[in-house]
Amino acid sequence: MPVGLDPPGRLFPVAGIRLAATHCGIKADAAVKDLTLIEIESGSSVAAVFTGNRFCAAPVTLARQHLLQYPAPRFLLINSGNANAGTGAEGMQAAISSCTAVARAADVEIQTVLPFSTGVIATALPVDSITAAVPGLFANLKSDNWLAAAEGIMTTDTLAKAFSRQVVIQGKKLTITGIAKGSGMIRPNMATMLSYLATDADIERDELNTLLNQAVETSFNSITVDGDTSTNDACVLIATAASGQQVTSSDTEFVEALSQIFQQLAQSIIRDAEGATKFVEIEVSQAASLDDAREVAYCIAHSPLVKTALFASDPNWGRILAAIGRANIEQLDIDKVDLFLGDTCLLIGGLPDPEYTEAKGQAAMDGEEICIRVALNNGEQSTTIWTSDLSYEYVKINAEYRS
Amino acid sequence: MPVGLDPPGRLFPVAGIRLAATHCGIKADAAVKDLTLIEIESGSSVAAVFTGNRFCAAPVTLARQHLLQYPAPRFLLINSGNANAGTGAEGMQAAISSCTAVARAADVEIQTVLPFSTGVIATALPVDSITAAVPGLFANLKSDNWLAAAEGIMTTDTLAKAFSRQVVIQGKKLTITGIAKGSGMIRPNMATMLSYLATDADIERDELNTLLNQAVETSFNSITVDGDTSTNDACVLIATAASGQQVTSSDTEFVEALSQIFQQLAQSIIRDAEGATKFVEIEVSQAASLDDAREVAYCIAHSPLVKTALFASDPNWGRILAAIGRANIEQLDIDKVDLFLGDTCLLIGGLPDPEYTEAKGQAAMDGEEICIRVALNNGEQSTTIWTSDLSYEYVKINAEYRS
Repeated sequence: MPVGLDPPGRLFPVAGIRLAATHCGIKADAAVKDLTLIEIESGSSVAAVFTGNRFCAAPVTLARQHLLQYPAPRFLLINSGNANAGTGAEGMQAAISSCTAVARAADVEIQTVLPFSTGVIATALPVDSITAAVPGLFANLKSDNWLAAAEGIMTTDTLAKAFSRQVVIQGKKLTITGIAKGSGMIRPNMATMLSYLATDADIERDELNTLLNQAVETSFNSITVDGDTSTNDACVLIATAASGQQVTSSDTEFVEALSQIFQQLAQSIIRDAEGATKFVEIEVSQAASLDDAREVAYCIAHSPLVKTALFASDPNWGRILAAIGRANIEQLDIDKVDLFLGDTCLLIGGLPDPEYTEAKGQAAMDGEEICIRVALNNGEQSTTIWTSDLSYEYVKINAEYRS
Repeated sequence: MPVGLDPPGRLFPVAGIRLAATHCGIKADAAVKDLTLIEIESGSSVAAVFTGNRFCAAPVTLARQHLLQYPAPRFLLINSGNANAGTGAEGMQAAISSCTAVARAADVEIQTVLPFSTGVIATALPVDSITAAVPGLFANLKSDNWLAAAEGIMTTDTLAKAFSRQVVIQGKKLTITGIAKGSGMIRPNMATMLSYLATDADIERDELNTLLNQAVETSFNSITVDGDTSTNDACVLIATAASGQQVTSSDTEFVEALSQIFQQLAQSIIRDAEGATKFVEIEVSQAASLDDAREVAYCIAHSPLVKTALFASDPNWGRILAAIGRANIEQLDIDKVDLFLGDTCLLIGGLPDPEYTEAKGQAAMDGEEICIRVALNNGEQSTTIWTSDLSYEYVKINAEYRS
């Protein structure tokens, strides 16, 4: 059961974007969508970031190439259930064939189509099922199909993830709508699992890249389930310009709204993390550098011992202390470290808070939403990341993933 | 159930060493030993390494101080069931009181006593139970109590860990006997959980330090269960000189025997890792640097997705590929990577081996002992580490650890 995550609310269509999703046969259950097409109106700006995993999937390699050759893509084709990673030359041919099917149906160049895949690694992509389903997708393209698209990209997700909001900039109403998927193999590096966002604002391409990179840092690049960066991570931000309203990275209201959608999508991945029973925020403040802050935060977030204690609602905070202590950072003065669980102080100046009681610790651990705060008190940098606990269900899901 | 680990075999006493272990009341079960004393004959050389965790426990800090002040310790006092870490000034006082009790009973300086603790973090050490039990320990010191000592230092270990062997050097029979404990919070950094080894060889102190540091690198510093470096790791190597036979680090036969005991002890920790159902060897070869080789090996070893696939005996090797791909190393040419599961080739030159079949992969995964071999083929450095899988039982043990 996801932690504090509801099914998507109202999703505003974004003028210039049409979507369709269907079952093409990659997943066994015919009731489950596994192929999604997103059509982007000509004249839009598109920015994308991809996984830092060197063994990236064939579609990631091809999408990068296509973007270089033709920076204004018209179609995104996304299959779930199969990652098309570790599949060699055959996998690349399958990605090319999928894009070709879309390009032919729309009478555009293949370089205007970006492919994305997510699912099991190292298994051949059933490309014929995909190409056969493409005409049907075109027939069903609609501007209010965001929910269907959010469902179409799911793998082990238990809920679709989609958020939408409208802001008024200079008297003009602008829409931002985004979807994401992801639940396991989550430690995005320069990108997320898969996420697609669009706005009808008119944003110049370099600006859009800046906005995407900024927003990704504090959202998808600040979450982890299991420390495993995926081979297929990708995040795409589209500005269709259909509203006619120009926006830049200095329009703070728009930037905040955009950043909020990114964070909601990223956090929804953690709320629906494989087997998660807790949603955990980890804040590390007053670090000597941002790298130090992130290293400490991820040491806590990746510790299986901290994660199992969170699962058990056990205020066994010695494990948090041990995780901080093993962080590979230059400047750690343990005599300065303060540690809080929610509002409950555990360590003050590196020593146990004399006011701490097990009952207070237990109360802080009992909720579904836990906040771990560490103040290193030797600098001015801080970071916040989000993670989940480690439960029986996580092991079950990942032990039985292919069976 | 441990993987391929039997109860200790014959343990040869080491002249110059006497040991005793008892139940003093730290653990709830009166039938379980939780306090161990090791007496070292005057004139012995002693070398020790301690955890790299900055939040090290009070006994670690005190043992380091005592060793600096008096480099030839006479007594090691080890309690299990409580780590005396994250316990502040009170914890330090408890460690001092424990050492004082031993020093008084033996009429020696407190600096000749080294304290060690292992167990729950951030809980007050029941120091009165320890001091009350010290006289009884002295009354029971015996040279053939190695097994009792191995039992006395256990926490979540299911089997005692002890190995012993004898080698003949220049016509003289030398003995090496060692014990270790450890099962969770295992990713030793410059040391292990707790391990004590002794030989009756005569080894000069600097030489002994060299021997200890070399042996630790390829044994305790090459294992991981959960990536969590403990606050209490320590490893002590004692040379009593009782045999009268001098040995240096150039006596290869002795060095090999010593190194073998270190590896047996380190591997026994992995074989008995919390919830382990597999014993996994990871060999990374032909890396540009030793650091690169170790980073790739630990990325695989720490991946919860690889570990759950191992638990399920599922040859889902895409997860291994993804773990290699996310390794934070400078030189990774994915077109050169070969990957094997046992003798079964998965990837050759970065591409799926056309000879691979799921049946072959399944056969390689079915055993209790799994070997993952990665050849990076861009250098000359290699490493071998050992790890365990991630099972329901691991989550259970660590969710219920304090209850």
